[in-house]
Amino acid sequence: MRLRNKPWAVKLVHEHPESVIDRPDPSLKIDWSKRFADISRPLEIEVGPGKGKFITTMAEKYPEKNFVALELQMTAAGMILRTKLAKELSNLQILCGDAANIDAFFSAHIASKIYLNFSDPWPKTRHEKRRLTYKTFLQKYQTVLRANGQVEFKTDNAGLFAYSLQSMNNFGMNFDFVSVDLHNEKEEVLAANIETEYEHKFAAQGNPIYALHADFGVK
Amino acid sequence: MRLRNKPWAVKLVHEHPESVIDRPDPSLKIDWSKRFADISRPLEIEVGPGKGKFITTMAEKYPEKNFVALELQMTAAGMILRTKLAKELSNLQILCGDAANIDAFFSAHIASKIYLNFSDPWPKTRHEKRRLTYKTFLQKYQTVLRANGQVEFKTDNAGLFAYSLQSMNNFGMNFDFVSVDLHNEKEEVLAANIETEYEHKFAAQGNPIYALHADFGVK
Repeated sequence: MRLRNKPWAVKLVHEHPESVIDRPDPSLKIDWSKRFADISRPLEIEVGPGKGKFITTMAEKYPEKNFVALELQMTAAGMILRTKLAKELSNLQILCGDAANIDAFFSAHIASKIYLNFSDPWPKTRHEKRRLTYKTFLQKYQTVLRANGQVEFKTDNAGLFAYSLQSMNNFGMNFDFVSVDLHNEKEEVLAANIETEYEHKFAAQGNPIYALHADFGVK
Repeated sequence: MRLRNKPWAVKLVHEHPESVIDRPDPSLKIDWSKRFADISRPLEIEVGPGKGKFITTMAEKYPEKNFVALELQMTAAGMILRTKLAKELSNLQILCGDAANIDAFFSAHIASKIYLNFSDPWPKTRHEKRRLTYKTFLQKYQTVLRANGQVEFKTDNAGLFAYSLQSMNNFGMNFDFVSVDLHNEKEEVLAANIETEYEHKFAAQGNPIYALHADFGVK
């Protein structure tokens, strides 16, 4: 979702270089060991976190893990930053950059999970390559993820979900969890689910939420 | 679905051995070349056709193909037979037997498609092995299907669909088509879709119909 530009967000981002990496040069690797207190902890990345409810809740719930919010929009980055500062989430870094450069921003096999939540469906066939589950993206996730690292994908969009099931299957990924009605799953599944802003709204309208967890196996 | 026993159905089945193979000995292969006018035509099997609306419509629409309805219940077999006789479908045979013996009833690589429509979901975990997309069934389908032969699966049951996506993915099958809302797909998809009795009823109530077409590749 495109957010309206908020001048305060840009200003806040510029004031916090310790928390936000602002459009880094993709030709230079980022030294994540300098951004987290303990780089040996599991690193999890959300691609396209938007306003950041999911990733900030995760960072709060799992202080023993490191999190990176990879977000293109400066306004969204500023909103995530505001929550990070308010909640003092030292285990969350914000990376303002293009998801297509994820394999440039992260060294190989550094991450244990990549989250894709309610990504832009890009419904037109000519925009297929922009979908975050298109094969060129999957290839980059495979590089960034460690062996048995997982992609966790949620959406309310039937077309994007069907597309992603096929794309991830055809890429050779192993499905670890699938749901076509996440909010009506068993108690333990519901308890583990962290809702995004969108998810809460769409589910409340009675729409099904689709979910897929998949890994690339040990290659 | 368990149908109420209808005496006329049993009688009709017994009167038409040329159309129905009634609970054959799984240790003896069936010579399908004696059951169809031209065995060189593509052979398609529906497992669990119930009252048979789908398979009889298919047989009528595609006279250039051969069809087998594999149905356990004698009453259902009788109902399919009645339609077959009324429509004079010489390209449809009815096999009254257990789906678990499909690899005994058919020789290897004889079929080009296997249809699973609105199969019993067997929702309890302890009944997983009875689901028609459990791995032991998939293994048998792989044996019966020719290279690149497809399994075409439809259901309105969210749990069975999610299970089947994972089971078929984990088995190494390639997804060729996926939909989590079949009745809202594009015109050409809708035009090719043959509805079952159940499907018509469930879709009319506004429930989504799920579909998956998958193959085993060339092994």
